[in-house]
Amino acid sequence: MPSNPLQTLLTQTPEEGYALAVKLAQKSVEITQPNEEVRQVLRPTYSNNADSLISVSQVIAIHFQTVAAANNYWQTWTPYYYQ
Amino acid sequence: MPSNPLQTLLTQTPEEGYALAVKLAQKSVEITQPNEEVRQVLRPTYSNNADSLISVSQVIAIHFQTVAAANNYWQTWTPYYYQ
Amino acid sequence: MPSNPLQTLLTQTPEEGYALAVKLAQKSVEITQPNEEVRQVLRPTYSNNADSLISVSQVIAIHFQTVAAANNYWQTWTPYYYQ
Amino acid sequence: MPSNPLQTLLTQTPEEGYALAVKLAQKSVEITQPNEEVRQVLRPTYSNNADSLISVSQVIAIHFQTVAAANNYWQTWTPYYYQ
Amino acid sequence: MPSNPLQTLLTQTPEEGYALAVKLAQKSVEITQPNEEVRQVLRPTYSNNADSLISVSQVIAIHFQTVAAANNYWQTWTPYYYQ
Amino acid sequence: MPSNPLQTLLTQTPEEGYALAVKLAQKSVEITQPNEEVRQVLRPTYSNNADSLISVSQVIAIHFQTVAAANNYWQTWTPYYYQ
Repeated sequence: MPSNPLQTLLTQTPEEGYALAVKLAQKSVEITQPNEEVRQVLRPTYSNNADSLISVSQVIAIHFQTVAAANNYWQTWTPYYYQ
Repeated sequence: MPSNPLQTLLTQTPEEGYALAVKLAQKSVEITQPNEEVRQVLRPTYSNNADSLISVSQVIAIHFQTVAAANNYWQTWTPYYYQ
Repeated sequence: MPSNPLQTLLTQTPEEGYALAVKLAQKSVEITQPNEEVRQVLRPTYSNNADSLISVSQVIAIHFQTVAAANNYWQTWTPYYYQ
Repeated sequence: MPSNPLQTLLTQTPEEGYALAVKLAQKSVEITQPNEEVRQVLRPTYSNNADSLISVSQVIAIHFQTVAAANNYWQTWTPYYYQ
Repeated sequence: MPSNPLQTLLTQTPEEGYALAVKLAQKSVEITQPNEEVRQVLRPTYSNNADSLISVSQVIAIHFQTVAAANNYWQTWTPYYYQ
Repeated sequence: MPSNPLQTLLTQTPEEGYALAVKLAQKSVEITQPNEEVRQVLRPTYSNNADSLISVSQVIAIHFQTVAAANNYWQTWTPYYYQ
């Protein structure tokens, strides 16, 4: 269903990682409701509803956690006990 | 109940890992409601409801987190402190 | 309350681990509502309701994450930086 | 508020760890609603409601994840790359 | 907004860690609804509602997971493969 | 959409990390509902509703978990088995 298969979770920056998390959230909606017309009809239902928006945010937050960990949190610190 | 027992969480790509996460989400619905006819009746209820679709997405997101970690996030970076 | 105390989180396969996750989800319902008759009455309420089934799936997904991690995700890969 | 302060997350068995997770879930209800009489009034509301029971299960599942990790998942396997 | 900035996630005991998790949960409510009078009005709404109490518990459970991990789960075991 | 792209998850203190978690939660709402006027209309709906505030808290809690882990929980303990 999704036009672009998911090749990697690695991104250059947290910003790109966040965009990937958004895509990962959309992907499951596309799989569960493959009919794009139905999805278009549903869109205003949740994008204009505060609680739905919060729920979408939660799904994105879980995916961002996954993407961030996959990227080792894009971090550059060295744990001092290895120094 | 599920026709294919779950042998491994390892997949070649994130795309396949995502598909596995979807299967893992469906599996628990099949276990909790083994009657396929009932599930068929319920399907339009959630696939045409924005909030239900978001909830399904959340379950998939949790499973994808598990699958991604099991696959070491399909990553190829080397933590530099081991180099 | 539960007839079989929980001895270990280790299982031979992901399939068995998934079954354990389902048991872990049921266990808390048994503890919170120890009366089996009440639970039997409630069962059709959620097993025939799409949103309840999705919520049950979410609880199983969280437990499966725990069980999978406890089993080191049943994995056989070797992190190459240890080779 | 809680009569027994939380000294440790370590338990001998997963069964005891699960019991601790249940206590951890109850503890936050006691903190948010310190009045025991009110809690007694509310109890039948959720213990006889399928969706509330599922929500309680979810909180326990999250705490069990924490307790299980704190106990290193009570596991005895040796990662073979250390052998 | 919060009077005491968050300096550390480290606590001496799990009991103190739990108290910190409660504070972390309250903190986001204070940020999202800075008006203390409004918060006081809302308080009985959720402290006398079983499902709201369960939802609050869930937020605390997630924060406790974070705090517990930050404190290395306050644990004293030695993984035997390092001995 | 967001004016400031997300450059890093690293912060000096847990307080700043918490502020970042709040931003991460807002960011997904901005992406899902890019129309700022609509968001302004929706704001009182959730900021004056106890359950919505709790849901927002949950999203922030998940992001704070991510940020805290990215910052290695801002911790200074040394695992004694490395000493």
